[in-house]
Formats: sequence, C-alpha cells, structure tokens
Amino acid sequence: MKVTPWEAEGEIDYKRLIKEFGTQVIDERLKERIKKACGELHFMLRREFFFSHRDLDKALQERERGESVFLYTGRGPSRGMHIGHLAPLIFTKWLQEKLGLKLFIEITDDEKFLVKRERNWREVQEAADENILDIVAIGFDPNKTFIFKDSEYIKNVYPLLLKTARKITHSTVKAVFGFTDSTNIGLSFFPAYQIIPTFFEKGRAIIPCAIDQDPYWRVQRDIAEGLGYKKAAAIHSKFIPPLQGPKGKMSSSRAESAIYLDDEPAAVRKKIMKYAFSGGRATIEEHRKLGGVPEIDVSFQWLKILFEPDDRKLAEVEEEYRSGRMLTGELKEILVEKINKFLEEHRRKRDERKKEMMMYKGALAREMWERVYE
Amino acid sequence: MKVTPWEAEGEIDYKRLIKEFGTQVIDERLKERIKKACGELHFMLRREFFFSHRDLDKALQERERGESVFLYTGRGPSRGMHIGHLAPLIFTKWLQEKLGLKLFIEITDDEKFLVKRERNWREVQEAADENILDIVAIGFDPNKTFIFKDSEYIKNVYPLLLKTARKITHSTVKAVFGFTDSTNIGLSFFPAYQIIPTFFEKGRAIIPCAIDQDPYWRVQRDIAEGLGYKKAAAIHSKFIPPLQGPKGKMSSSRAESAIYLDDEPAAVRKKIMKYAFSGGRATIEEHRKLGGVPEIDVSFQWLKILFEPDDRKLAEVEEEYRSGRMLTGELKEILVEKINKFLEEHRRKRDERKKEMMMYKGALAREMWERVYE
Repeated sequence: MKVTPWEAEGEIDYKRLIKEFGTQVIDERLKERIKKACGELHFMLRREFFFSHRDLDKALQERERGESVFLYTGRGPSRGMHIGHLAPLIFTKWLQEKLGLKLFIEITDDEKFLVKRERNWREVQEAADENILDIVAIGFDPNKTFIFKDSEYIKNVYPLLLKTARKITHSTVKAVFGFTDSTNIGLSFFPAYQIIPTFFEKGRAIIPCAIDQDPYWRVQRDIAEGLGYKKAAAIHSKFIPPLQGPKGKMSSSRAESAIYLDDEPAAVRKKIMKYAFSGGRATIEEHRKLGGVPEIDVSFQWLKILFEPDDRKLAEVEEEYRSGRMLTGELKEILVEKINKFLEEHRRKRDERKKEMMMYKGALAREMWERVYE
Repeated sequence: MKVTPWEAEGEIDYKRLIKEFGTQVIDERLKERIKKACGELHFMLRREFFFSHRDLDKALQERERGESVFLYTGRGPSRGMHIGHLAPLIFTKWLQEKLGLKLFIEITDDEKFLVKRERNWREVQEAADENILDIVAIGFDPNKTFIFKDSEYIKNVYPLLLKTARKITHSTVKAVFGFTDSTNIGLSFFPAYQIIPTFFEKGRAIIPCAIDQDPYWRVQRDIAEGLGYKKAAAIHSKFIPPLQGPKGKMSSSRAESAIYLDDEPAAVRKKIMKYAFSGGRATIEEHRKLGGVPEIDVSFQWLKILFEPDDRKLAEVEEEYRSGRMLTGELKEILVEKINKFLEEHRRKRDERKKEMMMYKGALAREMWERVYE
C-alpha cells in the first residue's frame, strides 16, 4: 500500500491510514453531533465513505458557539474528470447547504503544471476551465462560493504565500510528501499554496477531501497557530474503487478504470458491462446457489458510495444480489441507468453564468478579489 | 574566502573567483570592443572595477548586427542602502545611455522577506519604496526603464515562473547556492524569479552586477535554451571595500562599514575620519619619509572606484599620497567633500514622478503591465 497526494497503490487499509496519518475515526458520537448540526446524516457518512477526521468535533462546537467556520476544498485540474472526483464535492455541497458556510475551492493549475512536465500551460488552463464548469454543476451557493485558479489569485495572496513558505523547510516537504533532491523547486514550494486558503478567514477551515490529501493539513496544523490562524479541521473520504476492483483509486489516465463526466450513455454501458469487477459467480447456476459478494463487487460499491442514497433500496439490492436472485448483469443494469441519469442531469447543470458568479461576480467572489492577504 | 549571493567574507581573490565561477576576464580586446560600441570606456572599466563577464562579446556582436539586446539588474530591498549599492547602477545607467537599451530592474522584495525571517512585510515594502527612489535618482531613461517589485509583477509572470521552476531541481539550488534541507521552500523557489527577467525579451540580457550574483546566471544559462531563450550575458564588478579595510564587502547591517545614502555631511565626515582604513604611516615623519600606500587605503580606493572619474586628477592624488606629500587626513578631506557633494546631488534627484514613470506610466512600464508571460 502506498498513499501520497499523487498516488494510491495496492489494497488500501483505511484503519492503518488513520494510524499512520494520526487522524481520528468518525465515531457514533461525532455522527450524532453532525446529525444535530445538519438535521440529518448524509449517506456518505452513514455508510462510512467519509470515515476519518481532524478536529471536526471542535469545528462543530465552534460553530454552535457562533464562531466563524468555513469550508475549503480543491481540484488539480486535468482532462478526464471522472465520477470519483465528484464525491467530495457532492458531500461538500451538502455541508454548505446544511451549515450555511462560505466555501473556497482552489484550482491548483500551478501544481498540475509542475507535476506533469510534458504538459503546456494552455492545456492546463483549458482543463481547469472545463473542470470548473463540472464543479459549478454540483450546485454550490453562487454567493457563498469562491472558485479560483492559483495562477489568477496569486496577486492577492503572494505575501501570505511567502509568509507561509518561510515556515516550511525542505526537510518537512521531503518527509511529508516524499519529495527528493530531484524534485523541482516549483513543486516543493507548492504545498504552501495549498495551505493558504485555510488562512482566508480567521476562523477554522473544514476541509472535505480524500484521505490522500491529509499530508497538507498535517503541515498546515504545524504552522497555523504560529502565524495567528487556526489549525484546519478535515473530514476524509475513502477512495472510490476503480472499475477493475477494490484496489487503488480511479485514474484520469486509465480510461478503462473510470467513468468520465463526458462519457456517452453507450460508453458508460460498455465500460460497466465490460470492466466493472464483479462479485458474482462463475456460472449462473453457481450464482443462484451461492449468491454474489457485494463487498467486492464494484457496481454495488458504486451504488453504495454514490448512486443509491436510499438505504432501503440499497438494502434490497444487496439482499437480492447476496441471495443469488439478482445476477451481475442485472446489478450492472441498475448502475448503468443510475449513472446515465446522473450524468445527463450533471451536464445540464454546467452553467457559464454560475461559473462567472463563483469565480468573479458573486457576493463572496467580489469580496475575495478586493482582499489582499499579507 | 567565501562568496555567495548572501555573504562575502575574507580577502577576496578575484582571479580565483573567475576560475571557480567559470567566467571570463575582461581583456583589452573586449575593452576595445566596448569602447567602439559605447564611444568611450567608463572609468569603472578602465580601472578594472568591472573585471569579469560572460558572453558580453557575443551580446555586443549581436547588437552590432541589429539583434535585440537588453539590460537587466536588480536590488534586494533593505533599509540602509549605501554607496556600494550604487556602483553597478551607475555603470548600468552609462550602458543604457551609450547603447540605448531597455532596462529591467527587479526589486526582490520576496527574497528579502524570505531570507530575513524576523522582518515583516510592511518593513520590506517601505524599504523597497525608499530604495526605488534612490535607484530612480541614478537617472535612467524613464521611458526605457521598468522597475518592478516581485510581489506586484507576480501576476504577469506566474506561468513563466512555474515553467522556469519546473526546470530547476533542489539538487541544483543546493549545489549552486549552498541551500540545505533546512532552507525554507520559499527561498529555494526564489532563484526561478531572479532568472525570469532574462526571459522578458527574446534577445540576450546583459546583466551588470557584483560577481556574487553570478550563480543565478549559471543556472539561467543551463536552462535558457531549453525554454527557447538566450543564455544571459553578464558583466561583473568587484566589491567596494568596506571602510574597515579591503576585506569582505560593505554591509547594510554594520553602520560603521558603510556610508548610507541618507547620511548627513557631519556623519559622513565622522565615519571617514574615524573608520576609513588608512594606507598612511604611524607618524607624520614616517609618512613624509616613506609615503602612503594607495593600494590598501580605503579612501583612495573609493575615489578610484566611485568618486574621481578623472584619470589625471586621480593620478595626481595617487602620486601626492604615495610620495608622502599628502597626509591621510588630507586625502580623507578630498573624499569627504566628494561624497557629500555626491550625496547632496543624489538626494536632490530622488523624484516621485520619475519613480511613477519607471514603475507604471513610462512607455516601457506601460507595455510591461500589458504583457503576460507564459
């Protein structure tokens, strides 16, 4: 198992990650607290897709006391945004709605350019603009959301960026991110930029993200208070398994591992039917007799994580499949239909006007372009 | 001897520096070429204060062929700008005038902030604004000069900065600048920014600077052609000796080592009389008999490097002093008068309107704010 912000390989042992990263499990008590604050519990929490956190209890407490708390998440732009990329955003949207919070979304065009040495700047910008439309489609509040590209907002944050970078040594980024002496100086500088949106407000940032992003918050938490800010809180998700099976994570660069947001219905059907790893048996007879194994079945897992919010319906599918009454093909049909319906609606919600608001013209965006951070 | 962009210690062996840095000596042939191009030879060249170069011959050749060539220099802003800081600027002004070139002056407010961990941003900005007025006083062409603070111009260059940083590894900056794993990630990123003004035009940059800045150009020359630009040319000066004697260089942080641009006439007199290392003898009798030693006399050296452009007059002073007819006190009187006259005039030439032009409103400045470098 290897998990860094840039790779996830092998079978992911999430309990071990909690230990290694030094985060906390989201226990029943914290779930109760979230339920109290939000009025309900999102199915991604009920089903433990979001499973780990840092100081989320503290952040909720602060909010109860009327103190400032805000949301922050981000995206490293690339062509081939897939459904795995949407999960933390969908969850973030729910949090924003339920808690009424400001939300900052950082588009790390600089990082992408620094990591992918063969990519040119225009390509990264085109990917960023496309990705932002997909983010906008999630339905964030256009007046409480600020989406920015690092390269555009740099002029408002450069002094704060230097102040942050001044607190981080190369030893630290080597130890935390696995950088080496061969890493380019741009990439080793970059962690400072991923940290600074946590300083956009004096209150505490809550960061919904996949667990592989946690190393950034570890560094943030080491330096925040010395700079007069609060340690960030985070709420971590697991990875959505790639089509091939429950190991690793979906990859933008392996077409057969993911469903892209612009995949046509026929392509979705073909990929699911052809590649989705099945928990079913070798023959129909065997399947009827022994039943499927939902735990390792990617189609079932995708329904559980993303596409079937209704617990009763999900339990029904699980029961049918486990009993052998439902065949793999039938399970896949359910998923194909859900995905295609979701994607159709998603594409309909891509909206240039809302993008404009969240980037430049909404209430929060306008305020952010006025601010200069030192 | 230790020479890096941040320190110069011990007796400086300039011949050894040329060897270690791999630069070229400015020989008679090159001086002839400069004389031909400029119509005359600046006394800092005649007296070998500017003594070393990289590709200056090539740059002059290109200019003769009508190809684009431009000037670039800079300043790390701090309180306590002293006369030592002006020498490369005075020489640069002469080059601009004689060759009619565009000039870029980078104010590295980011670097200063990153190196001096105790300094706050406002202090650095105030120092930068003061320093820029002193730079403006040198008399550059307001329509052919662009003075910019890194923190302000960042928005126009960030993509190019990333492109440059992507080509430089941490190994390189460790080897070239002596950075270690304890260096902060801001400072190890910074060399990319000091390099990019060499890419402001497609032609060749000529960089007048003290020899300690050469490591930056070594890195630039390794990566420039791979990015589609030309290797920078440089013309290197020696250091102006501090008042205490011919070792090391003047320091902004040791008040008794330097004459500051805002020193009052009485302070100048006191410092020279009290601290300027003398090449005179222990007693008047001995001095009359043996004569002074101009080679180690700081007052004489300052006249030679900065304050007495007239070769005939300088030779007279040298002869008088060496013969013992002129006493140290008399030599110092000459210097005090020259410095005070220079400083009075210098302060008169600090000009807010010209600062405005070179930073924002002159022909070149306006053009530069329109440009975005990718």
